[in-house]
Amino acid sequence: MAGDLLLKNVRPLGGEPIDVLLREGRIAPAGAPGGAAEPVECSGAILAPGLVEAHTHLDKTLVGMPWYRNEVGPLLVDKIDNERAQRRLLGIDPERQSARLALQALAFGSTHIRSHVDVDTELGLAAIEGVMATRDRLAGVVDIEIVAFPQSGLLVRPGTVELLEEAMRMGSQVVGGLDPCAIDRDPKGHLDVVFGLAERFGRPVDIHLHEPGELGAFSLELIVERTLALGMQGKVAVSHAFCLGMADPERVAGLVELVAEAEIAIVTTAPPSRPVPAVRQLARAGIVMAAGSDGVRDTWGPYGNGDMLERAMLLGLRNNLRRDDELELALEVCTAGGARVMALEDYGLEPGCRADLVLLEGETVAEAVVSRAPRRLVIKGGRIVARDGRALVEAA
Amino acid sequence: MAGDLLLKNVRPLGGEPIDVLLREGRIAPAGAPGGAAEPVECSGAILAPGLVEAHTHLDKTLVGMPWYRNEVGPLLVDKIDNERAQRRLLGIDPERQSARLALQALAFGSTHIRSHVDVDTELGLAAIEGVMATRDRLAGVVDIEIVAFPQSGLLVRPGTVELLEEAMRMGSQVVGGLDPCAIDRDPKGHLDVVFGLAERFGRPVDIHLHEPGELGAFSLELIVERTLALGMQGKVAVSHAFCLGMADPERVAGLVELVAEAEIAIVTTAPPSRPVPAVRQLARAGIVMAAGSDGVRDTWGPYGNGDMLERAMLLGLRNNLRRDDELELALEVCTAGGARVMALEDYGLEPGCRADLVLLEGETVAEAVVSRAPRRLVIKGGRIVARDGRALVEAA
Ligand SMILES: [Zn+2]
Ligand SMILES: [Zn+2]
Repeated sequence: MAGDLLLKNVRPLGGEPIDVLLREGRIAPAGAPGGAAEPVECSGAILAPGLVEAHTHLDKTLVGMPWYRNEVGPLLVDKIDNERAQRRLLGIDPERQSARLALQALAFGSTHIRSHVDVDTELGLAAIEGVMATRDRLAGVVDIEIVAFPQSGLLVRPGTVELLEEAMRMGSQVVGGLDPCAIDRDPKGHLDVVFGLAERFGRPVDIHLHEPGELGAFSLELIVERTLALGMQGKVAVSHAFCLGMADPERVAGLVELVAEAEIAIVTTAPPSRPVPAVRQLARAGIVMAAGSDGVRDTWGPYGNGDMLERAMLLGLRNNLRRDDELELALEVCTAGGARVMALEDYGLEPGCRADLVLLEGETVAEAVVSRAPRRLVIKGGRIVARDGRALVEAA
Repeated sequence: MAGDLLLKNVRPLGGEPIDVLLREGRIAPAGAPGGAAEPVECSGAILAPGLVEAHTHLDKTLVGMPWYRNEVGPLLVDKIDNERAQRRLLGIDPERQSARLALQALAFGSTHIRSHVDVDTELGLAAIEGVMATRDRLAGVVDIEIVAFPQSGLLVRPGTVELLEEAMRMGSQVVGGLDPCAIDRDPKGHLDVVFGLAERFGRPVDIHLHEPGELGAFSLELIVERTLALGMQGKVAVSHAFCLGMADPERVAGLVELVAEAEIAIVTTAPPSRPVPAVRQLARAGIVMAAGSDGVRDTWGPYGNGDMLERAMLLGLRNNLRRDDELELALEVCTAGGARVMALEDYGLEPGCRADLVLLEGETVAEAVVSRAPRRLVIKGGRIVARDGRALVEAA
């Protein structure tokens, strides 16, 4: 097929150099005839499956807009209220902004993105519609999965439940939730709605759980109970899960067992200033872990750029991963882990897998992660979509 | 004077755009006649004083060497023993390596570096001699201050005290120390040597203090007592000081008061995986804070690149600094704070200050810190020494 590529001299995850044929958008078996495939010299670069951005907020980034001077107060409610106000004042257009950030993430090698997208009674479904437009336009370039996310609360703002339902009907792929105790003050009511929608629409769940310590542990237990009761093992993700970073090792060990039993995935941003789930501990327990940037340069905070290789580094720093094999785990969380959370089919470097790939610079995976050099090539469905750190598709 | 520069259209720390004349290596008063100064168009870039790398280990970085596959065990002693072995096996040349890292740091905008340099009974003074050669060769390009550092212990390895003394006699500028309880098992003995040498040579002190919780608090109290007894206020720095990040707020508040009273500076690397001193709390108490990269890509760990703007970002992430004014504090720690720890004279942006400067990209200081774009210009003593992220001096 015209457009097939032959990647010459790549090292899969830092292994021995080989040539890899990409045929009809997939990885061909070793030794398959290259035919008319265009050779691409890769000079010993590391071949990895596309990075997976498993938790971000494409709808509200300020990327590409004038600098927003952050003078927001210290409380969570300050940030939520400020955001609702700034959305109008700054003119944050969800379609434009989601395209900008998605393509920036793609330039850094992310071929798949799970984005939480705000639904509230002021905004209605405008953000969902905007990100859906971007999702449709960029399909096949960077795949976007939408989580309908009740950022301002679900039950405390009457009308939000109906909006969330409508967001699912429109084609959001995942039901979102948020701090069942802290925001809605009604954990049972909140989770009944979230899991009820998931059951009705046959969709997975991804819940923001910032609640610390025992409060978060309580919410997590409620999530485990519902997951088991509804047979939703493997279909529930909890983002942040700061409670798994609390100081009591016995309590945490018990929670980790519950999470493993319910096959709940944990998505982390590895924030340096908060307690976090311990990557090695969760990996040992067989729990699927993924990572994300969370908000990138928004009214909540100025950090982030959508680079999941930098996120792997931050994951390594946060978890004190120093050995080469430990940094391979960090990259795995930012690739295969995310792919499992998003239930991607045919993801990886095996023959037959979709040719969603990134070339990394370094002698080993660990060097690639800590160096974070611009990505030489990003490939999606067998096509080159970014080169030398720049997407080959325009945002506007 | 030939070589004077007129920086056109710079914004000092993000303020209004002005022209700044650099005359005879210093910042000229506003309105001074430019004469034959060469104009340099700066297009509204942010003008900051040179970044200060206040804690690194130039002698043992592996920068520019083949990737070192880290398979080291989890204990502190594993890392120290491995390092002594690898120094020979890998052929880590202190002079070559210190020059490489110093110039890489310079390319990132650091005009001043305080480096701890190993002294032990196997290595002798070879590392001191190597970094001294680099210090002399790069004088005026990037200024290096040497801390004679007993990495393998002081009293546990007989002969080290004499070597440390010789390192001071040779011209090391600062007396180093390390975990008085944990390594030497004799805090009184350790600190008596360190402060004794400081008194004898009339030099300041900088002690690595990793000891956590109450153990570190005890060592810190001993350091405070000696600082006050010897009248060494303003001449003692404690690096890391993890004990100031411990969980008991009342205990920490008491220690912070002691540190402030003794005018001890705290130098942090803001590690995401360890407890750390809280930047805002220490700033409120009037304590001088500086920051550093610590080891950059060495046998201890793979992280780091010598970029103090990235360090300011990590400091911000670790301390949950989100507001613009908070990120200005992060940059201040990585500039003026380091300058105070190193007792630099005529440092800053005032007329008469030495023209040790860096141009940063961004609308505000906060944007510059989170974006970390390559530094357009680095100026040392009025001369351009790095441009677009590359040093204009060769390492070899
Ligand atoms: Zn989020
Ligand atoms: Zn150190």
